[in-house]
Amino acid sequence: MDESRDEPRGPVEPTASAAGALRPSWRYRVSGGFWEERMRVNREVTIPLGPERLEEAGNLENFRLAAGGGSGPYQGPVFSDSDVYKWLEAAAWEQGREPSPTLAGLQAPMTRLVASAQAPDGYLNTFYQCHPERDPHFSELTFGHELYCAGHLFQAAVAAVRSGGSTELLGVSGRFASHLATVFGPDRRQGVPGHPEVEMALVELYREGGDARCLELARYFVDARGNRLLPLERFDSPYFQDHLPVRKATTPEGHAVRALYLAAGAADVAAETGDATLLDSLRVQWDNMVASKTYLTGGLGSRWEGEAFGDPFELPPDLAYCETCAAIASVMWSWRMLLATGDPSFADLIERTMFNAVIAGVSLDGTRFAYVNPLQVRSTGEQVSERSAGYGRRAWFGCACCPANVMRTLSSWEHYFVTVSPAGVQLQQFGTGTFSAMTPAGPATLLVNTDYPWDGELDIEVLDAPGGSWELSVRAPGWCREPTGRLNGREDLEPTGGYLRATRAWVPGDRLEVRLPMPARRTSADPRVDAVRGCVALERGPLVYCFEGADLPGGADLERVVLPEGPLGTRALAGLTAGAVGLGVDALSLDIETSDGLYKTPSDPTPTGSTELRLTAIPYFAWGNRDIGAMRVWVPRA
Amino acid sequence: MDESRDEPRGPVEPTASAAGALRPSWRYRVSGGFWEERMRVNREVTIPLGPERLEEAGNLENFRLAAGGGSGPYQGPVFSDSDVYKWLEAAAWEQGREPSPTLAGLQAPMTRLVASAQAPDGYLNTFYQCHPERDPHFSELTFGHELYCAGHLFQAAVAAVRSGGSTELLGVSGRFASHLATVFGPDRRQGVPGHPEVEMALVELYREGGDARCLELARYFVDARGNRLLPLERFDSPYFQDHLPVRKATTPEGHAVRALYLAAGAADVAAETGDATLLDSLRVQWDNMVASKTYLTGGLGSRWEGEAFGDPFELPPDLAYCETCAAIASVMWSWRMLLATGDPSFADLIERTMFNAVIAGVSLDGTRFAYVNPLQVRSTGEQVSERSAGYGRRAWFGCACCPANVMRTLSSWEHYFVTVSPAGVQLQQFGTGTFSAMTPAGPATLLVNTDYPWDGELDIEVLDAPGGSWELSVRAPGWCREPTGRLNGREDLEPTGGYLRATRAWVPGDRLEVRLPMPARRTSADPRVDAVRGCVALERGPLVYCFEGADLPGGADLERVVLPEGPLGTRALAGLTAGAVGLGVDALSLDIETSDGLYKTPSDPTPTGSTELRLTAIPYFAWGNRDIGAMRVWVPRA
Repeated sequence: MDESRDEPRGPVEPTASAAGALRPSWRYRVSGGFWEERMRVNREVTIPLGPERLEEAGNLENFRLAAGGGSGPYQGPVFSDSDVYKWLEAAAWEQGREPSPTLAGLQAPMTRLVASAQAPDGYLNTFYQCHPERDPHFSELTFGHELYCAGHLFQAAVAAVRSGGSTELLGVSGRFASHLATVFGPDRRQGVPGHPEVEMALVELYREGGDARCLELARYFVDARGNRLLPLERFDSPYFQDHLPVRKATTPEGHAVRALYLAAGAADVAAETGDATLLDSLRVQWDNMVASKTYLTGGLGSRWEGEAFGDPFELPPDLAYCETCAAIASVMWSWRMLLATGDPSFADLIERTMFNAVIAGVSLDGTRFAYVNPLQVRSTGEQVSERSAGYGRRAWFGCACCPANVMRTLSSWEHYFVTVSPAGVQLQQFGTGTFSAMTPAGPATLLVNTDYPWDGELDIEVLDAPGGSWELSVRAPGWCREPTGRLNGREDLEPTGGYLRATRAWVPGDRLEVRLPMPARRTSADPRVDAVRGCVALERGPLVYCFEGADLPGGADLERVVLPEGPLGTRALAGLTAGAVGLGVDALSLDIETSDGLYKTPSDPTPTGSTELRLTAIPYFAWGNRDIGAMRVWVPRA
Repeated sequence: MDESRDEPRGPVEPTASAAGALRPSWRYRVSGGFWEERMRVNREVTIPLGPERLEEAGNLENFRLAAGGGSGPYQGPVFSDSDVYKWLEAAAWEQGREPSPTLAGLQAPMTRLVASAQAPDGYLNTFYQCHPERDPHFSELTFGHELYCAGHLFQAAVAAVRSGGSTELLGVSGRFASHLATVFGPDRRQGVPGHPEVEMALVELYREGGDARCLELARYFVDARGNRLLPLERFDSPYFQDHLPVRKATTPEGHAVRALYLAAGAADVAAETGDATLLDSLRVQWDNMVASKTYLTGGLGSRWEGEAFGDPFELPPDLAYCETCAAIASVMWSWRMLLATGDPSFADLIERTMFNAVIAGVSLDGTRFAYVNPLQVRSTGEQVSERSAGYGRRAWFGCACCPANVMRTLSSWEHYFVTVSPAGVQLQQFGTGTFSAMTPAGPATLLVNTDYPWDGELDIEVLDAPGGSWELSVRAPGWCREPTGRLNGREDLEPTGGYLRATRAWVPGDRLEVRLPMPARRTSADPRVDAVRGCVALERGPLVYCFEGADLPGGADLERVVLPEGPLGTRALAGLTAGAVGLGVDALSLDIETSDGLYKTPSDPTPTGSTELRLTAIPYFAWGNRDIGAMRVWVPRA
């Protein structure tokens, strides 16, 4: 199909010979509603901030130094190149959405700067190039991050060409990858990257350039991992996922972003090599993650120590780390698993994660970022770490991995909406817009109108269709108890296999009305989640809600609030994001005498009284956009 | 009194002009029972391990390097000198208990080695002496730890002379302190130590040497702190207690050991300068710590991140840091507050902390140590940190602050048992043994027989007494609901002000029978402690109990256990420590279907059934001495 060649493509573009139940489709064109606002802020406010911040933090000057110009010492952490690459990736996806001369004016010199720093042998890493005394290269695999940075370079290069942009970074990447292929491999240097990332990037580079050595090297890194090849520094092997081969792991462990990038890369390797055993292992790991290690928001990584997953059911809301990058990595992994299996559970987790854990990572005005995303904040007083959520979102970080990761995720988000299969087309994510997709019968174009996630009505109209028969599927979200679909006002669709499906020879004007009733609901956790025992959380549709101190009557203390049974109402929220819906709920504020002591014997502390409150819960992603104060998702039941 | 001059003295020996309700008495001579075993293991097993471990880790070689001999580079963290000093302090206290030629043979060369490394100007720190390129000294106050190490040197020196040992370290300390006095002070260099410790050590050095500059410098460091004098590295000012002057703080914040050493030093300064305002501020901080930031075990410091206190009511049992050193620091602070105020609440916390949080830090056989002391361990699988409790106790640590801290604490523990006041003598801690004390009428000697903490019967007999009248007081522990005392089988004593008191002209043969009934009890927490909502803990006397996986029937899962109401029995425990008493309790193991999902809507997860179990709880301090497995103190109520 010639037409497919002109369409901008997105992250993950399996080759024709790759295994997988589904394939990515062309970009969805969001034209209004929730995601339009988030992506517009990302394009117009957040991404343009990047070059300024990268200049202030020294990331760009490092490239000038490595290229032989510039001044001063290397600045920032060892992996600071990766922030530049993630920004370039974000800008590239935006060019694929709609050309932007402003962004192009920022991209072009940054691309040239990156290219100018590449060494004659293809090596590129400004930290090591600025520290020649640390030669030889790749001798500090544990925390050196050379391969991690290379991975982000490759992803930026792939984004540029898939968006119709410059091939300059692809050339740089190809030379670097060729260099890597001379260094690492089963018959060469044994070693794995301290921080996975290059695995999925190498597969994507293989997909663009066709160099089989890239796929081989990715497979080598996946296969070699788990054999304790990494010399230990500061953390033990599980931190690095180097204690157990990927195929033997049954649950993600250790540093969450490392674990999830590795899983995404392994899924890419499994797809391109048809490795069903590897895919099966990833499925088991994903299932166990969802069954015992995933926050209600989709956030991942319970521990500050080692930014690690933690044990099953160790899901404290207050001490949650839930790094923004881990949520993004989860979306990347789940997308690959969705393509591999067709199971909409993966799209369910993508939805939950994007609406809650990911977009909580950036302020509604697009200027400030969260590194950790806990589900409870008690105090916003002085904290010991710059990452503390109690500070609210910040303009940038000393370790600034998250901000540009949010940028590239929102700028490529439209690529996650639609998949295609031999049977037809699947609408996986929802928002107002249009999309074209290659059906078995030929290209079709559809229009979606919805106020999702504020209501659950999707009106889908066929604008253009080929003549033949094909199946149109709409994901029936796992959170929805009674999803319904009605075709042309007459025929009711039953959900099967997690989708509402209709197969017919669609013609322009055909309408599918999908209704996903989203009454506000109370959610409780498995009793083994000790940290939220006796608590409920409020949800509506794909959104998790929270309470903020700012919404309590003056002087009331969020630590004393409990929720009795009772109806949950909805109400319009002003001052957050367009169309936002809050939840109204009756609550009680307990009288607790602090003088009773922290521990009591023998019976339960029995508060002597309580005060009735009418509270409003707001979507979790919107917390901390007014006054920064106490916040909690899980609230004790009265 | 000449006699007092021959008695070994202990940590904290206020000058005659110091303010304070109580004064330390002479050493209690534990001769049997619980503490005899713990202190014997400490003396015979743990302390003798020290020199070997310090040699292996390079701490001693660092001194040889600094003295101009030795070989190789400096080894270990920047504060590695302090481990040597803490070991010397521990050995010194043991010599005060009873001379040990074995320990003396280890002490003497180590003392000479330390002295040999001192620079001509009095400076002594092997890290900086081995890194001359990092001159000038004291230019890296934030994490350089020069003053921290100096403090431990001074404490070791004071311990040696108070135990009748060598004055060599006192000379070294005096020269170093004189050097410090030329560097720091209101009219000289402005700065405070990144890690408090030197404050209390300087006051103690002042008490031994009478050099007023030591007290002035300690006061300066206390006064200057909280003014953001420390350049920031890695952590923000609250980590270092440098965000708020000590007198304005209302609760301990930031790194727990730093905060508590600072508080102990401030209490010493308050005592020696008669600064009632400073003491009042410390009292407020202590009260708030106990009301909202103290674990049931007495453990302190909730967060791995920054080893910090955390917010009020942030007391997760699983993610608890509860560093052994923080528990020890709490005992040090509370002891100073007890002397200052006479309030037995401080002795209550010392007791709770020693019996639970402190001695959990060393294995029953005395060979292995815990760094963190959580109240719940789910998994003992692979962990990311060497400090993880899931590994069980370890032979030593890269950062080995805790082991020698336990050694010096147990070797000086007998000094915390008895206080004196103008009215008489107070027995603050309990164990079988004898003690002499200076009463207002002259020296008296008493004998105590008890199986404490396994039962609550204390039989106290007067062996020798002066002619006049004086008050004998026995602390009535806060955990005890009905403490009673009977004098010579006839007169009943009523507890007043937290003590059972009797005033008379005591004569040899007088007997006081104290009865502290200790039925096993169920304890619950303030409802704001989110992490243990709906749970109970079992306690008996001063002991907190826990459940271990090792005591569950095969295949049972501690995560599924809940406790219905019902009687608690006691039972003898074999294989732990002599006379140990366990608690027998009926429990249920819930059937939980993992396939039900981690989160459920709309109602509570309702396990379909449960299995009855008869379980034994063991004292918390003894956990992890058999097979390392799951452990928990707080268990859900059925």
